[in-house]
Amino acid sequence: MEFTRIAKDPGCAARVGTIGTPHGDVRTPAFMPVGTQGAVKGLTPEQVRDLGADIILGNAYHLYLRPGHRLIADLGGLHRFMNWPGPILTDSGGFQIFSLGALRRMAEEGATFQSHIDGSTHFLSPETAVEIQEALGGDIMMCLDECIAYPAAREEVERALARTARWADRCKQSRKNRAQALFGIVQGGVYPDLRRRGAEEMTAIGFDGYAIGGLSVGEPKGLMLENLAATAPLLPEDRPRYLMGVGTPEDLVDGVFHGIDMFDCVMPTRSARNGLLFTNGEKVVIKNARYREDASPIDSECDCYTCQNYSRAYLRHLYVAGEILAMVLNTIHNLRYYLHLMERIREAIREGRYPEFRDRFLRERTAIHTDGCPET
Amino acid sequence: MEFTRIAKDPGCAARVGTIGTPHGDVRTPAFMPVGTQGAVKGLTPEQVRDLGADIILGNAYHLYLRPGHRLIADLGGLHRFMNWPGPILTDSGGFQIFSLGALRRMAEEGATFQSHIDGSTHFLSPETAVEIQEALGGDIMMCLDECIAYPAAREEVERALARTARWADRCKQSRKNRAQALFGIVQGGVYPDLRRRGAEEMTAIGFDGYAIGGLSVGEPKGLMLENLAATAPLLPEDRPRYLMGVGTPEDLVDGVFHGIDMFDCVMPTRSARNGLLFTNGEKVVIKNARYREDASPIDSECDCYTCQNYSRAYLRHLYVAGEILAMVLNTIHNLRYYLHLMERIREAIREGRYPEFRDRFLRERTAIHTDGCPET
Repeated sequence: MEFTRIAKDPGCAARVGTIGTPHGDVRTPAFMPVGTQGAVKGLTPEQVRDLGADIILGNAYHLYLRPGHRLIADLGGLHRFMNWPGPILTDSGGFQIFSLGALRRMAEEGATFQSHIDGSTHFLSPETAVEIQEALGGDIMMCLDECIAYPAAREEVERALARTARWADRCKQSRKNRAQALFGIVQGGVYPDLRRRGAEEMTAIGFDGYAIGGLSVGEPKGLMLENLAATAPLLPEDRPRYLMGVGTPEDLVDGVFHGIDMFDCVMPTRSARNGLLFTNGEKVVIKNARYREDASPIDSECDCYTCQNYSRAYLRHLYVAGEILAMVLNTIHNLRYYLHLMERIREAIREGRYPEFRDRFLRERTAIHTDGCPET
Repeated sequence: MEFTRIAKDPGCAARVGTIGTPHGDVRTPAFMPVGTQGAVKGLTPEQVRDLGADIILGNAYHLYLRPGHRLIADLGGLHRFMNWPGPILTDSGGFQIFSLGALRRMAEEGATFQSHIDGSTHFLSPETAVEIQEALGGDIMMCLDECIAYPAAREEVERALARTARWADRCKQSRKNRAQALFGIVQGGVYPDLRRRGAEEMTAIGFDGYAIGGLSVGEPKGLMLENLAATAPLLPEDRPRYLMGVGTPEDLVDGVFHGIDMFDCVMPTRSARNGLLFTNGEKVVIKNARYREDASPIDSECDCYTCQNYSRAYLRHLYVAGEILAMVLNTIHNLRYYLHLMERIREAIREGRYPEFRDRFLRERTAIHTDGCPET
C-alpha cells in the first residue's frame, strides 16, 4: 500500500491524496460505503462504482460467521465472491463484538462471544482476526481493538487502551501477507491524554495507516470533536488517517479539517432504507404527506440517477407501498450525496479554500438537523 | 395500436408479430413483467429493458388505491411517473377484486369492495375501470370482467360470462381516448362451449385485442390446456391474443403453440424473491445447503448479469443473510430466463420448427417440476 499526498490546504490540516492498493487507487479524503455482509445493501457493485466509490468496507465478524472466511477464500477471496474489483477495507470485528454487550466476554487472550445469528459460541483473538482478514483478502486490514462504551470510568478506558496496544502488537506479529496493509487503531475514550498515549503506542509499533476508533459511540458531539481534534494531529503525516464509523456530513467535513483521510458509516445507506434523504437544503423524510404530489426530484442540484429520473411523489409512493425499489433508489441518492460531498471536499482542498468551504457548509446545514438521522 | 403478423409456423397456430403502440413496438409472442404498483419489484426500468422486455404491466386496482390515478395523471401519466418509456398494458382490476373474496360484492352496476390496504370501501364499474386506465395512460387497457373461482357451477359461470359481455360493451362505450387500445376478455371457466360463447360475444363487440381470462385459477393443468386449446382458435387471427396471468415456462410454450401472443405472470419475479430460480436443467432452490460452496453460476448457459458475475454460493449467502441484493439478482435471472425463452420461441416460429421446439422443451422439463414454484 502506498499513500501519496497530493495537496494540503494551507489554512488547516486537510489534505488530498491517493492510496495505492493491489486493486486500484483510492482518492482521499474518501468515504467508504459499508458492505457488511459482502454487499452494499441493495446495490450492484457497478452501481456503487458509478456513484463514485473507490473503496468499500467489508466486515470480518459478519463474514466469519456467515458464510465463513474459509469458504470465501476457497472461492477466490472477497473481491471475486462479491464481484467488486476495487479496493476493500475489512474491519476486524472489534466494534461488532463490543456491540454484542452481554453476549461477549473480553479476556487478554481474546474475546469469547455468542453469534447474533444462532447463539453459537466463538472466539476471536488478535491472531484469528488477522487470519480471517487474510482469508478474505481485503486490501486494508484492521487490528483487533477493545472498544469501550460511553460513558466509562477512566481506569476502564486506560485498561482497554493498554490491551488494545498489546493486541495491535500481536496482530502485527501474526500477519503473514504483506500485500494486505494493516492499520492500527487509537482508542482512549473521551480522554485526550489517553488518546495521545494511544497514538504514541500505535506509532511506536508502526502501521501502514492509523485509525481513530471509539468515537461516535454515544458521547456528546462536542466531546467527539474535541477528541478528534486532539488525536488526528498526533498521527504520522505520511500515513492515511481513518476515522472509524463516522458519521454525519458535518462530521466528515470536520474530520477532513483535522486531517482525516478516510471515513465509513452506515448512515447514508441505513437512512436511505428508512426513507431519510440527504440534501444540501431541507431534510427529506420521504414518507411525509407533503411530498405526495411533489413532482420535483429529491434535490434539484443532485446528479444521481434517482434525482435525474424520479419525482419525490414517486419515491414517496414506492416507500409507502413497501417496494424494494424504494430502498434501491434512496440508497443511490444518499450514497451519491456522501460521495459527491467527498468530491467537493477534495476540490476545495486542492484549491486551498477548505476552511471557507467548511464554514459555509456547517453554517448552511445548522438549520436542517441532519443529526435526526439514525446513527445506529 | 397496430398488430403486424410477421411469420406463422406451418405446423401449428404459433405466430410471430409486432404490436405497434404510441410508446414503441412489442415483439410477439411477448412476456410482460408485472409492475403491479408502478415498479417491477426490485429493478430499475433500465434493468428491465436490458433484460429484453418490450412491455410491462401495471395494475389499475393497485394504482387507483395508491397513490391514486388522478395523482399519476397530474404528474404526467404512468410512463413518466415510473420512468418507463416503453409500452404499458394496464389490467382493469377485475382479477384483483375477484381475489378479494369476502371483501367484495358484485352487482350489475359494478363491484363494491374494501381496500386491502385500509379497509375503506370503493366502487369499480366498467366505466370507472376505463376512466382509471385512461388516467394512467397505458398503451393497452383491459375491460373490466367478472372472474369466477374454480370450481364453480355451470350456471354461475354462465351468469358471470353474460355480465362480462355486458360490462365489455359498457367499457367500449365509455372509452374516450382511442390512442389507448382496449382488449376484451373471454371468460367461461372450464366449459369449452361457454368459452366459445364468450369468444363470439367479444368478437361481436369488437376490440383491439382479445384476452383469455380466468384460467390458471386453481383448475387442473389438463383443464387449463383444454380450455386454452378450445378458445384461442376462436379469436380473430388479425388481433393480438393475450393469455392472462399465465404461467410456468411450459404454459407459455403451450400457449404460443395454440396461437397466444402475450403473457403476464408474477411467477418469475415472485419466485425470485423466494429464492426459486429457473434454469433449463435443474430447479435451483438457492437456499439449499448443496449450493453452499458452489462456484458455478445459476445456469452456465444463461447470459444474464447475475449468471455472468455471481456464483451460486454468493447468491445463497445473500439469500440466507436476507440481503436486498439477493432479490435484485434473483429477479434479474428469472426475468431473463422468461424473456430469453420468448426470444427462443420467436426464433423457432420464424424458422418453422415450433412444434419440434415445443416437444423438446416439454420433454426436457418433465423431470424438473417447475410446477413446484409458487403460482399465487
